[in-house]
Amino acid sequence: MPESITLYSAKICPYAHRAEIALAEAKAPHKRFEIDLSNKPEWYAPKVNPASKVPAIAYGGPDVAPDAPSPESTKIAESLVLVELVGDLYPASGIVPADPIARAQARFFIEGVSTKFVPHWYAYQMRNGALDDVWKGVEYVQSLLPPTGFATGEYSMADIAITPFLARARLSLLNSIGTFQPDEAKTVWATLTDKNGKYARFAQYIDDLFARESFKATFDEAFVTEAFQKRIGAMLAKK
Amino acid sequence: MPESITLYSAKICPYAHRAEIALAEAKAPHKRFEIDLSNKPEWYAPKVNPASKVPAIAYGGPDVAPDAPSPESTKIAESLVLVELVGDLYPASGIVPADPIARAQARFFIEGVSTKFVPHWYAYQMRNGALDDVWKGVEYVQSLLPPTGFATGEYSMADIAITPFLARARLSLLNSIGTFQPDEAKTVWATLTDKNGKYARFAQYIDDLFARESFKATFDEAFVTEAFQKRIGAMLAKK
Repeated sequence: MPESITLYSAKICPYAHRAEIALAEAKAPHKRFEIDLSNKPEWYAPKVNPASKVPAIAYGGPDVAPDAPSPESTKIAESLVLVELVGDLYPASGIVPADPIARAQARFFIEGVSTKFVPHWYAYQMRNGALDDVWKGVEYVQSLLPPTGFATGEYSMADIAITPFLARARLSLLNSIGTFQPDEAKTVWATLTDKNGKYARFAQYIDDLFARESFKATFDEAFVTEAFQKRIGAMLAKK
Repeated sequence: MPESITLYSAKICPYAHRAEIALAEAKAPHKRFEIDLSNKPEWYAPKVNPASKVPAIAYGGPDVAPDAPSPESTKIAESLVLVELVGDLYPASGIVPADPIARAQARFFIEGVSTKFVPHWYAYQMRNGALDDVWKGVEYVQSLLPPTGFATGEYSMADIAITPFLARARLSLLNSIGTFQPDEAKTVWATLTDKNGKYARFAQYIDDLFARESFKATFDEAFVTEAFQKRIGAMLAKK
């Protein structure tokens, strides 16, 4: 039986969202503490995560309030490390596929998402990066998908890894939060979700990801949209 | 019982070396095929790894010659994916620690090696990057080490992930293969391995890593030194 888990998270952060989906998938009892990324509590870096980033988990130790973390709990950071940890603690969740080959394929899929999709999406959203690179990333990820179902068949860490980025891409495109023109942004999302288009398989995959209960239970779209408008708006205005 | 494994590797490549150490640790029966990275066989990308990189594993399928890979085997790439795969196929090897928390700590250590040590080392070796950033990376990795033993106590994937880079850093520094001055290079290695210096814990760790049988059995120092002299020498001469 796993020990106590306290998750330090932030609703807007796609990395933290991965850990939240994992905990929801595993139905893992846990406390949750929202970190305001623009005004982090001063105890957070010294007592929880020296890198001062979310997500982080405090595991085990005495039963304390999240804002008074105990030195006796083990602190662990990095979103993918946490997703696998939750999967390892709750093997029945299927987060970490039971079959070693499916597990390797899930990790390979995540590597592709991390290196071929996420950086190009961010470049496009934040720095006028090439839309064409985003399409190449989507095409690559689509090429890894089986004909139906999730990345490695059953829902797993592979799907958890990409979902928060797609959810935030959607609201950014539909609300024109980024270095793109509103019309172009809407067309991009329409193309990505066109079930008869070039990315039809990817479009179906997005549908399947967004229909997952663990995603719906952990995504506060209105909050993230407003926070993105403020935060990313301010970042872009500075340039 | 795991199915057949064919490893596509290259002696000079630190990433491929990770997979080799893992197979040696697991005492996993396998075939090995050396890929000449400067003259790859034309079947390699289409039939084994579309990214055309090493390492890659062909898993299962009929018993074929490595240079005639069967479409029926599963092809898997990415060094860390392969290390964990070998660990998952051979759990008794301890490559993937049995305890979920130790496992998470091993993955966190690897993340640190990948983002805080390797890129700075390469920048220093290949592009006159700041030596100070290398020291910061070493200091960070050292801060993650327990007082004695390996990264998470027992030898694991965490140690496999860093070893090939340290072995190649050593021979590059001692033979002055890189954008550094010979005298500085030798001093760097002496500092890194000084048991009474600032990096004493790291120095002991290097000793422990290099003493591991799985490392010694998979590292052809004379070959790699000569290949590095030719290959990196040529790359630097072009600049």
